[in-house]
Amino acid sequence: MDTELFAKLRKQHPLVVNYANFVTPQFVANGLNALGASPIMTLAQEEASELMTPADALVLNLGTINASDMPMVLALAKAATKLAKPIVLDPVAVGATAFRAAAAKRLLADFPIAVIRGNAGEIAFLAGIAAQAKGIDAGESATSPATIAQRCAERYNCTVVVSGKIDVVAQGHNLATVYNETPLLPAVVGSGDLLSSIIGAYAGIAEEAFDAALLGVVTLGVAGEAAASQLEATQGGTFAAVLLDTLATLDVERLNTQARYEEARRA
Amino acid sequence: MDTELFAKLRKQHPLVVNYANFVTPQFVANGLNALGASPIMTLAQEEASELMTPADALVLNLGTINASDMPMVLALAKAATKLAKPIVLDPVAVGATAFRAAAAKRLLADFPIAVIRGNAGEIAFLAGIAAQAKGIDAGESATSPATIAQRCAERYNCTVVVSGKIDVVAQGHNLATVYNETPLLPAVVGSGDLLSSIIGAYAGIAEEAFDAALLGVVTLGVAGEAAASQLEATQGGTFAAVLLDTLATLDVERLNTQARYEEARRA
Amino acid sequence: MDTELFAKLRKQHPLVVNYANFVTPQFVANGLNALGASPIMTLAQEEASELMTPADALVLNLGTINASDMPMVLALAKAATKLAKPIVLDPVAVGATAFRAAAAKRLLADFPIAVIRGNAGEIAFLAGIAAQAKGIDAGESATSPATIAQRCAERYNCTVVVSGKIDVVAQGHNLATVYNETPLLPAVVGSGDLLSSIIGAYAGIAEEAFDAALLGVVTLGVAGEAAASQLEATQGGTFAAVLLDTLATLDVERLNTQARYEEARRA
Repeated sequence: MDTELFAKLRKQHPLVVNYANFVTPQFVANGLNALGASPIMTLAQEEASELMTPADALVLNLGTINASDMPMVLALAKAATKLAKPIVLDPVAVGATAFRAAAAKRLLADFPIAVIRGNAGEIAFLAGIAAQAKGIDAGESATSPATIAQRCAERYNCTVVVSGKIDVVAQGHNLATVYNETPLLPAVVGSGDLLSSIIGAYAGIAEEAFDAALLGVVTLGVAGEAAASQLEATQGGTFAAVLLDTLATLDVERLNTQARYEEARRA
Repeated sequence: MDTELFAKLRKQHPLVVNYANFVTPQFVANGLNALGASPIMTLAQEEASELMTPADALVLNLGTINASDMPMVLALAKAATKLAKPIVLDPVAVGATAFRAAAAKRLLADFPIAVIRGNAGEIAFLAGIAAQAKGIDAGESATSPATIAQRCAERYNCTVVVSGKIDVVAQGHNLATVYNETPLLPAVVGSGDLLSSIIGAYAGIAEEAFDAALLGVVTLGVAGEAAASQLEATQGGTFAAVLLDTLATLDVERLNTQARYEEARRA
Repeated sequence: MDTELFAKLRKQHPLVVNYANFVTPQFVANGLNALGASPIMTLAQEEASELMTPADALVLNLGTINASDMPMVLALAKAATKLAKPIVLDPVAVGATAFRAAAAKRLLADFPIAVIRGNAGEIAFLAGIAAQAKGIDAGESATSPATIAQRCAERYNCTVVVSGKIDVVAQGHNLATVYNETPLLPAVVGSGDLLSSIIGAYAGIAEEAFDAALLGVVTLGVAGEAAASQLEATQGGTFAAVLLDTLATLDVERLNTQARYEEARRA
């Protein structure tokens, strides 16, 4: 795990352009801000290129994707690709509707997506594995998260994060499993959206997308556990605020001592 | 009051499709999530039918209704009607503009709305009773909330909730008055939106819309009072988070012991 | 400083129509509500005139301005102008893209904007002074905030607020500098948006836009300091809620005793 990236984020404040869903944008922006990144959200196709020029990364969240936003999403992805800025894709509820599936698959076909992050159901769908999905965040599959992540990573030749009680990060022959977790993270609508954007912030300053994804997962997991340790397991409302407080005080030492993960890399 | 519905919600996690206003969607989603329901928000007309198929209910919130969203709103309502899923209508500030009035009246004319929930001013307007409205939530009338609710329920042949210091639920010859209240609920922008969506969650698993509406009002009233009991009467910011915490720990016993309401039903 | 305006706001609950960005609308609405104003947000061009008729002020926030919203923004500005209701402009990230610059400049050219509020980078850009901007809120310039504010005020013949560690309010020969501040305000995404809307609320009931702007800056500064005094300097998440609590309990005495500012007025 490359905790140097954390120090670099605190120093450089990477600018993350977000195509955000309209449900959780403030939570995502506050989370990025608390961590030390610089968020910006846009709805204007005309400014795609100018926003991506100083930006370090692009995060495309499909939570409330719709036809009239698509030209802007494509313009952002095109600008990011031209400028070689990494793109993170959060395919929210991708298996639930043909429209979402078509949007995600078009983005995956036409642009070099660096990281895909979703729950097991969403990633299984993209990987072509049968799965069940209900609502925004749920998603179960008979296949193991590691297998789902690896197949999706292979299919789209990128880094893939499967979020859940255990998080898995896969890319080529690299595989990491992160055990930091708290039931309070899924209690907050938008915690997955925030994770995708945190991965985007790291990806914007990392050499390897896999490092960005792994550190992103550990960052939210460690901060989440630290925030949860001050609360009852049912205080999801209060937790959202305390999580932001905790992201602001996170440091390399806490990341190193409290991260619980396994990592297997092969050349 | 049918508290079995509460236990059923906790077990079945009804999926509530929300056409949400853009001001309070995260609060509504977190509230539904804390209670045990499963929220999804959409802005894509193309996915209306696919989202409504697994869904248990549809909530249409007109808080920031606009012309370009109308085709999607109609597609959602059409799909819900075809699939016999209950529709809850929240006619935010309906009396303030002709556009909102036209949107609400079209929905009421073309689709079998199960529940309408609003403040006295909004419901009086729909019932054809003169009233005053200013801003989002205010709304007063010389007519009693019970009469307003009953007339509106009669006109549109549905269940109607009038929210205020006292809440009234009316449908046909049934009438309930709920006394649970706290000044902290109106201090949070979106508490009415959340109530409409909670009623939607119950309506999706109830036999009778009246039962869903009454239990919805009691649920937010009891949770609101419990949350407020930990705070000063001015802590509206903190209350929003504690309310979510409280919704997550609500149980049938608290609902039964702390509900304060009168109910009159006639065959 | 005209603290009578504060008492008047608490009594009259001015109605503020907001064209809000989609990132922070709930925080802005809750902040206005806590202070005692009455917020409404809209996305429908058709209702511009009807909403502005009972309204006291219009706030145009360009945080996520886009082409399809422009006709509505223009309709709101036109209605406000016709009805002589003050308009506050928040030119978020105006220097970052040609699209934002064109939108802001068109509004400034075509309508009598009462107050412009932004950070040093945004206001310097509008004033034609070279500056650096990155992300939403950052913005630095070699020129002093007072000079930036004065030049912008002169150019557009209005009141201008430059927000930062020190806030400056300029209009004609009037200049005020406000020293109340806390690092927790910039830690909350949307605190600038809230300030613009608070200024709008005061402007709707003030004789002079300068008085509204100065009191708005002092209001958020004093409330922010009071909220921060209960917290660690890193608790940005918790601060957002406590700030709302504090706005609700603010009174004239606290404003008078805790305001720290200098004011120079010339006839």
